[in-house]
Amino acid sequence: MKIIVDSLGSDKGPAEILKASRMAADEFGYQIILIGNETELKNISTKNNISLQNINIVNCSEEISMTDDPTDIMKEKSECSMAEGLRMLSQDEGDAFVSAGNSGALAVGATLIVKRIPGIKRCAFAPIIPKENGFFMLIDSGANIECKPDMLYQFGVMGSIYMKNVMVVKDPKVGLVNIGSEECKGGSLRCDAYNLLKNNSEINFVGNIEARDIPSGNTDVLVCDGFTGNIILKLYEGMSKELFNKFKQILLKNTKTKLAGVLLNQELKEFKKSMDYHEFGGAPLMGISKPVFKAHGNSDFRAFKSAIRLAGEYAKRNVSKIISENIN
Amino acid sequence: MKIIVDSLGSDKGPAEILKASRMAADEFGYQIILIGNETELKNISTKNNISLQNINIVNCSEEISMTDDPTDIMKEKSECSMAEGLRMLSQDEGDAFVSAGNSGALAVGATLIVKRIPGIKRCAFAPIIPKENGFFMLIDSGANIECKPDMLYQFGVMGSIYMKNVMVVKDPKVGLVNIGSEECKGGSLRCDAYNLLKNNSEINFVGNIEARDIPSGNTDVLVCDGFTGNIILKLYEGMSKELFNKFKQILLKNTKTKLAGVLLNQELKEFKKSMDYHEFGGAPLMGISKPVFKAHGNSDFRAFKSAIRLAGEYAKRNVSKIISENIN
Repeated sequence: MKIIVDSLGSDKGPAEILKASRMAADEFGYQIILIGNETELKNISTKNNISLQNINIVNCSEEISMTDDPTDIMKEKSECSMAEGLRMLSQDEGDAFVSAGNSGALAVGATLIVKRIPGIKRCAFAPIIPKENGFFMLIDSGANIECKPDMLYQFGVMGSIYMKNVMVVKDPKVGLVNIGSEECKGGSLRCDAYNLLKNNSEINFVGNIEARDIPSGNTDVLVCDGFTGNIILKLYEGMSKELFNKFKQILLKNTKTKLAGVLLNQELKEFKKSMDYHEFGGAPLMGISKPVFKAHGNSDFRAFKSAIRLAGEYAKRNVSKIISENIN
Repeated sequence: MKIIVDSLGSDKGPAEILKASRMAADEFGYQIILIGNETELKNISTKNNISLQNINIVNCSEEISMTDDPTDIMKEKSECSMAEGLRMLSQDEGDAFVSAGNSGALAVGATLIVKRIPGIKRCAFAPIIPKENGFFMLIDSGANIECKPDMLYQFGVMGSIYMKNVMVVKDPKVGLVNIGSEECKGGSLRCDAYNLLKNNSEINFVGNIEARDIPSGNTDVLVCDGFTGNIILKLYEGMSKELFNKFKQILLKNTKTKLAGVLLNQELKEFKKSMDYHEFGGAPLMGISKPVFKAHGNSDFRAFKSAIRLAGEYAKRNVSKIISENIN
C-alpha cells in the first residue's frame, strides 16, 4: 500500500506530518510518498533522528494556504504540493492521498484532477464524530452549501458503504438530519430525499433525526446538506469547548472544588479526549474515484497517522468500486 | 397590564400554568385572563389553595395538541383555547398572549388572527439562549424553513429592537450564522442578507458568525433561517444533556469520583441551570402586530411566569410599534 502524503498546508508544520508518516510506515507497513520541501524534510529527519526508510520524498515547495481561494489549485497554485499529490493519485502513482491543507481546494482539486465516481453528483466531506456510545459519520459537513434530493440520497448510500467497509459497522443505520421526526418535514429537499432513501432496500434507513438526538442517538450515518453539516460540526466543537471551559472554572472556584479537580483529573482528561472529533483522524472526501482524505488542519501526528491508516483501509476495501456498483 | 394566558397545550398541565399566573399577578401586578376548562381550573384553585384574585377565567375546553396539524387552528380546532386567546388579543381584550402549546399552530394562528406588522414578510420564533457570558437571541429558530435575504434582514432588525428594549442590551451586536467569517459565504441567501444587514446603520451588524463561536462569542442576536436555527437550538439542548450525562457517569465511577461529586454538588446544579435555555421563559413570535409568546411545552411554573413577565415587557415597551417604525 502506497499512501501519498501532503506535508504542506498543515497548521502544525511538516515535522508533525513526517513523524506521522514514519509511524504509519512502521505500524501499518505502508510505503509513504511525502510531498514537500525536500531540503526542509531531510533537515527535520536528521535533526529529529527520524528514519526515511519506506518514505520517498517528492520535492515541491509551493503551498496552497488556508486563505487561498479554493479554485487557485487549478490556476495560480497549480504547482502546489496538494495539486501534485492529486495528480500522482490520478496517475496511479499511489493508492490514496492525505492532506491537512485547504479543504475547499482539496474538494475542487480532487473533483477536477482525480474526478468523481461516474454517476456521483457531488463529492462530500464526511468526518467521523464521537457520540455517547461510539461515533457517527456526518455527510456532508461542508463541501456543498446547496443540495438537491438526489445528492442527499447519494450521501446516504456512500456513508453507509464507508461505515460498513472501513469502520466495520454492521448494517449501519442511516438517518436524515431534520427538524422533526415525522416523514415529511424540512421542506421539499428533505421530503424528497427521505423518499429516495426509504425506497432503497440496500441501506438501513431509520428516518429523520432531530438535532437534539444526535449526541446520544444510535444512528451511524447522518445525512445533511453541507451548510447544515458545517453548523453541526462546528457547534459540536464549540459546545464541547465551552462546557469544558465552564467546568474548569468551577474546579478552580475554591478549595473544595479544587480538591474535586484533583480527584477527577485523569477521568476528565479521558472524557475530553473522547469528545474530540480530531482524534478520529481524517475525513474521507466521499464520491471521488480514488481515496482522498482531509486531515484536520490542526492534526497532531497521532491524528494524522490515523488519517493515513483510514486512507489505506479505504483503498484496501475498494470503497470507490463498491460505491460505483451501488450507485449505477 | 392584561396578559392572556393559554392554560391548555402544556406538557405539565393547567395546574402549573395557574401557579405561574398567580405568581405573575402577585409579583408584577398583572391582570391575567386565563383560558381553559373553568371547572378544572376552579378545582385546582380550591385544592391547592391558589387564589384567583386578578385572574379571570374564560371557559374553553378544546385543546390543540402537539400532534395536531398547525393549520387545524383555523379549521377543526378553531374553537381551541389558543385560537380563543389569539382572537381576544386581536380584539384588544388583552395586551399580550402566552401559550405553551403547539408552536406551528401558534405561528399560523398569530399570523392569520392577530396578523403581522405591516411590511414584515414572516414572523419568526426567537428564543433567548444562555452562553458563556449571558445570553443571545436566536432568530429564526423554526418558523420558516426556507428564507429569502430580506426575511433574514428583517429578523436582524427585529432581534436588535427586542434585545435593546426588552432584554435591555445596549447597542446589541447582530451576527449572521454562517460557515465562514468572510463576507461572501454560505451561498446567495446569506451573501445578500449580509449586504442588507451591513447597509443598515441603525443596527450594530458584526458580520458572519461561525457555529463554533456561538457558545463563547459576544453576539447578542444570531440571525439564521428557521431550519438552521432549529438545528442549533436542538443540538445545544442535546449537547448540554449529553455532556452532563457523561459527566454524571464519571462521578459515579468509583469512590474517588463519588467524593468529588459530593464536593461539586452545589456548583454542578447551578452550572446545569445556567445552561438551560428553558430558564429564560418564553420565545417571542417576532413580527406579529401584538405580543405573542411561546413558552416551552415543558415549562415549569417559574419558566412560564418568566414568559408572562417578558410578554408584559414587550407590550409595555411598545416593541411592535418600534419595529413598525423601523421597517417601513
